[in-house]
Amino acid sequence: MGRVVTLLSDFGSRDGFVGIMKGVALAIDPALQLVDISHEIPPQAVAVGALVLRSAVPYFADGTVHLAVVDPGVGTARAPIVVRADRALLVGPDNGLLAPAVAALGGARAVHAIENPALLGQPVSATFHGRDIFAPAAAHLARGVPLASVGPPRSGLVELALPAVVVTSGAAQGAVVHVDRFGNLLTNIDRAALRGFRHPPHSVRVIEMFTVPLHATYGDVAPGELVAVWSSWGTVEIAVRDGSAAAHLGVGAGAAVAVAGG
Amino acid sequence: MGRVVTLLSDFGSRDGFVGIMKGVALAIDPALQLVDISHEIPPQAVAVGALVLRSAVPYFADGTVHLAVVDPGVGTARAPIVVRADRALLVGPDNGLLAPAVAALGGARAVHAIENPALLGQPVSATFHGRDIFAPAAAHLARGVPLASVGPPRSGLVELALPAVVVTSGAAQGAVVHVDRFGNLLTNIDRAALRGFRHPPHSVRVIEMFTVPLHATYGDVAPGELVAVWSSWGTVEIAVRDGSAAAHLGVGAGAAVAVAGG
Amino acid sequence: MGRVVTLLSDFGSRDGFVGIMKGVALAIDPALQLVDISHEIPPQAVAVGALVLRSAVPYFADGTVHLAVVDPGVGTARAPIVVRADRALLVGPDNGLLAPAVAALGGARAVHAIENPALLGQPVSATFHGRDIFAPAAAHLARGVPLASVGPPRSGLVELALPAVVVTSGAAQGAVVHVDRFGNLLTNIDRAALRGFRHPPHSVRVIEMFTVPLHATYGDVAPGELVAVWSSWGTVEIAVRDGSAAAHLGVGAGAAVAVAGG
Repeated sequence: MGRVVTLLSDFGSRDGFVGIMKGVALAIDPALQLVDISHEIPPQAVAVGALVLRSAVPYFADGTVHLAVVDPGVGTARAPIVVRADRALLVGPDNGLLAPAVAALGGARAVHAIENPALLGQPVSATFHGRDIFAPAAAHLARGVPLASVGPPRSGLVELALPAVVVTSGAAQGAVVHVDRFGNLLTNIDRAALRGFRHPPHSVRVIEMFTVPLHATYGDVAPGELVAVWSSWGTVEIAVRDGSAAAHLGVGAGAAVAVAGG
Repeated sequence: MGRVVTLLSDFGSRDGFVGIMKGVALAIDPALQLVDISHEIPPQAVAVGALVLRSAVPYFADGTVHLAVVDPGVGTARAPIVVRADRALLVGPDNGLLAPAVAALGGARAVHAIENPALLGQPVSATFHGRDIFAPAAAHLARGVPLASVGPPRSGLVELALPAVVVTSGAAQGAVVHVDRFGNLLTNIDRAALRGFRHPPHSVRVIEMFTVPLHATYGDVAPGELVAVWSSWGTVEIAVRDGSAAAHLGVGAGAAVAVAGG
Repeated sequence: MGRVVTLLSDFGSRDGFVGIMKGVALAIDPALQLVDISHEIPPQAVAVGALVLRSAVPYFADGTVHLAVVDPGVGTARAPIVVRADRALLVGPDNGLLAPAVAALGGARAVHAIENPALLGQPVSATFHGRDIFAPAAAHLARGVPLASVGPPRSGLVELALPAVVVTSGAAQGAVVHVDRFGNLLTNIDRAALRGFRHPPHSVRVIEMFTVPLHATYGDVAPGELVAVWSSWGTVEIAVRDGSAAAHLGVGAGAAVAVAGG
């Protein structure tokens, strides 16, 4: 069995685009273990793709190659790149999509442009670099082709502007950054943001209108009730037990969330 | 190639949760053959998940490990379990999700709690046991770890209350239990329910309003017409040829269906 | 690692039908490399399935087996077939679904009916030939079973009537044949249709109402603007940069598109 190559995109599952990328990769190395992370990233939503990718990469074995394509700039000057982190390689457009995942893996050890025409699909189209550039590069890298063979080194990668958490004495103010399929509201407030609190927080404020108790698990409240928990992303999550907090509160990504400590 | 591990959940395909479970499993055994059964079970719909799982397990080879997570009680006292059936292992929460599939495979030979912290992701979160408990347990079991190493035996598993078929002399009264993506209405009336009939039935009654002819195949009626057939689940199905019976009749799961024999 | 078997269907991802086909195939050969092309073909939409399949098959390695099931006639007289092309085998119902892909692979070298009961699931149902006929046939063929063992030769396969492109001196008149998940309008006008033009075209007319400039890439217009490009299918595509042309223009499959040359 070959190396694991993960795939994330905004290509959806209807038009065959993902299958085509896999066909290209397997024509290069039929033993690859291909794993979909998500192809339902909303079209061109680089930040959503970046957050989902970041949430997933820590759980894959060392040596995994992560291929990600959310690429509104396909065909323009944005560079196709490969990033080496301590435990993984990441392949995609240099538009911020990879940066949070790279940071979660300890930062970039090297960044190279993907330019070597001998490793790419020919001719390279102007509309489907997932097929013509990213999938073949990922497959060759998974087989062991060195980064230097893919293209010249670059000095860094494009960072992604994500909503920041503002921490003051005793309060952390952040935002909902993702609504998952259950309607859970995932925020950007992690445990580190609460490190200076003298007392552990007991509740969360959402859009300055709702106070939601912070508990260990969904089951600590009755079905249908609001509850805040520590999410699988390691951040504060607002949920409704057996329901949808997004529907219940009528809020989504961007909504202000605050945690007050003692 | 390693063993087949199937996955079923209500996690959807957008947020990366399934990819994360696969990453965890492949980090334990990179040679696993991972097969998705469904991740579009409606959120927290244990009965739907149980029926879809039951419909699929008979078609997998001996030795398959079935991992299923539809788990409204994540983080509460419901036990994570592994069940040994004659031909497969089943891993999931003990909330009824596994029981119909276990029965379809001939019943439980052994049930063990999943408790061994050495085999689980650490720390175990309160919100994502698919990642922290079920996926690692399934991967270790697929590699050959014995059930006794996973945790202590339990005396049984939680059964699922499913709608029953009432059979009287010459009639079987059941219900629609699932609407598939084509709008076909799958009922719980199997051939065994009709065993006592003196004459084979010729039609099916739906919500005491519609009489639908029972035929061998969709093609026995004209496009757009109602037809009852024996479904791929082995039960009576109400369909519209080249159309949706659910839309045509305006009925769904729970609708009463009756078959009268001679 | 065994051969690649691709899967395309209108089965969706919710009901477990695709997982069941994979279970059947892996019970025959657990080393198969299974790749989904699409299971979100609209129900019974043979032409959509045929176009998506055709777009994908050229990118898979020689020796791939393509399994496709969009089969409104399941259970009727239409034949289950396997087609040998120069580089691949194709398995599915003989209803036009396979024909465009076969043509893209250079044409049929042989066509055989799938009839050998020893290779099929038993009993063969009247409602799920994907499980009982096509998946087992594809798996056996991927393992190397010769076509002649599957069933007797047939003289040809059912062709699919697709919208034609009318080329006159200096103009090519075609149609939108697919709307992808981004809302891009994929037409049937390929480069060959423009071969007789004395000057390269600079624009495309959509439903005789909109004139859209033809550029090398989406990035050649401002965000939100209409642009025509050469699609990943090798045909003229009408798009909105960072948006949906289908929503912007209110048109879909069937809309007339014309390219005028010099």
